[in-house]
Amino acid sequence: MQEKPLILITNDDGITAPGIRALIKIMNKIGEVVVVAPDSPQSGMGHAITVDNVLTCNPITIDDGPQLEYTCSGTPADCVKMAISEILNKKPDLCVSGINHGANSSINVIYSGTMSAAIEAGIEGIPAIGFSLLNYKWNADFSATKHFVKTISEMVIKHGLPNGIVLNVNIPDISEKNIKGIKICRQAKANWVEEFDKRKNPQGKDYYWLTGKFVNLDNGEDTDEWALENGYVSVVPVQFDLTAHHYIQNLNSWKLNG
Amino acid sequence: MQEKPLILITNDDGITAPGIRALIKIMNKIGEVVVVAPDSPQSGMGHAITVDNVLTCNPITIDDGPQLEYTCSGTPADCVKMAISEILNKKPDLCVSGINHGANSSINVIYSGTMSAAIEAGIEGIPAIGFSLLNYKWNADFSATKHFVKTISEMVIKHGLPNGIVLNVNIPDISEKNIKGIKICRQAKANWVEEFDKRKNPQGKDYYWLTGKFVNLDNGEDTDEWALENGYVSVVPVQFDLTAHHYIQNLNSWKLNG
Repeated sequence: MQEKPLILITNDDGITAPGIRALIKIMNKIGEVVVVAPDSPQSGMGHAITVDNVLTCNPITIDDGPQLEYTCSGTPADCVKMAISEILNKKPDLCVSGINHGANSSINVIYSGTMSAAIEAGIEGIPAIGFSLLNYKWNADFSATKHFVKTISEMVIKHGLPNGIVLNVNIPDISEKNIKGIKICRQAKANWVEEFDKRKNPQGKDYYWLTGKFVNLDNGEDTDEWALENGYVSVVPVQFDLTAHHYIQNLNSWKLNG
Repeated sequence: MQEKPLILITNDDGITAPGIRALIKIMNKIGEVVVVAPDSPQSGMGHAITVDNVLTCNPITIDDGPQLEYTCSGTPADCVKMAISEILNKKPDLCVSGINHGANSSINVIYSGTMSAAIEAGIEGIPAIGFSLLNYKWNADFSATKHFVKTISEMVIKHGLPNGIVLNVNIPDISEKNIKGIKICRQAKANWVEEFDKRKNPQGKDYYWLTGKFVNLDNGEDTDEWALENGYVSVVPVQFDLTAHHYIQNLNSWKLNG
């Protein structure tokens, strides 16, 4: 009998978030599950790692199921490093991160703790996927994600992913029957326009809350934003070689050495 | 008379770090300088932003010079957002980040607060450069960086950079006369192999320090690692469209919709 695939699960909303609990249930049907996730929310952490503080990591039981679970004091990227180096006896066959409460499409991939965990696993040579649902609420309904999360995960286990590529999957917040299917996309060229909410503290000193407006000027029908707006699950292959290879020749023409 | 270019400076080692003080001195020769930098070290912060806490930002004078300076409680990416949204009256002509104490070559670009600031500026449509010296020490000697930082910054002001591209510049820790020149490179395919240093706290509970060994299996002479080992300043054009465009066709062949 073939051994079940070993699946590492993490996230950035913290180990008790409904999104990761939903992901664990789905993955228990596919393989042996080990969860190593942050003990507190880590949203907006980007690809942070903990270099100037200590880390703790402890076994925990949160709800029923065959999965093994560990809670870790660090960032999502720390959790992946910790899992691979200290907890697992062998390299996992798949790492899944999420399901994030909120979108990680377009430029959000850069700020995303969910995707940083998937990218960290990718750097370690593990096929990896970040999943996000377009609903920021803690009590978001994850039932529509089930079929798509399972299908995409099984396909990644079957086909593998080349070195240097992980998947960024976003799921619209609509019922399963209204989702039109899965669309392979490119990251839309969109960004946030910051609006700081300036306030005064009780001592009269200024402080700020970071807020912002999401602006998408990219109308391409091959983008993740288009797919999501039109009822599709978006899948973007993401690379962590950030080199703009096409621009190397231009830079050489600057003659920086005089 | 032509107006001097407006230059925004930030970093991830904190506003008092010798690396940013050196960078301010160089930029004062090129343009009008405004510094908005973290009030404490932010190394390893990746592209973190502060969404679950408040930010403060205050004018400060650290040493002589015509520059205006502000110290901010957030991450490097926060500093750039704050500068553009709250402090500057117009969009800067250039944003420079650093000079980092330590390398941000190859995969380190992913974990780098220095580069996250440059990328944040790039997202905002500002030509941007991250500078790093290959010396982690606080008392590193930045004198060899001067010529190269000035040359590359002036060239970026002159030529501009296309939307979506920023520069990652690393400088070897050798004397200026031993530096062979500037080399345009690609990011080497290297990574860290984690080694957690496991210890016991006074109560007998385990905790960890993240350490690691840097492993470069990429021998390409067109990589940043090769350039730095061979006495060149490396310049990598970095993009924040993370889409692995070349892999979209392969993913479509998986037939995820059955």
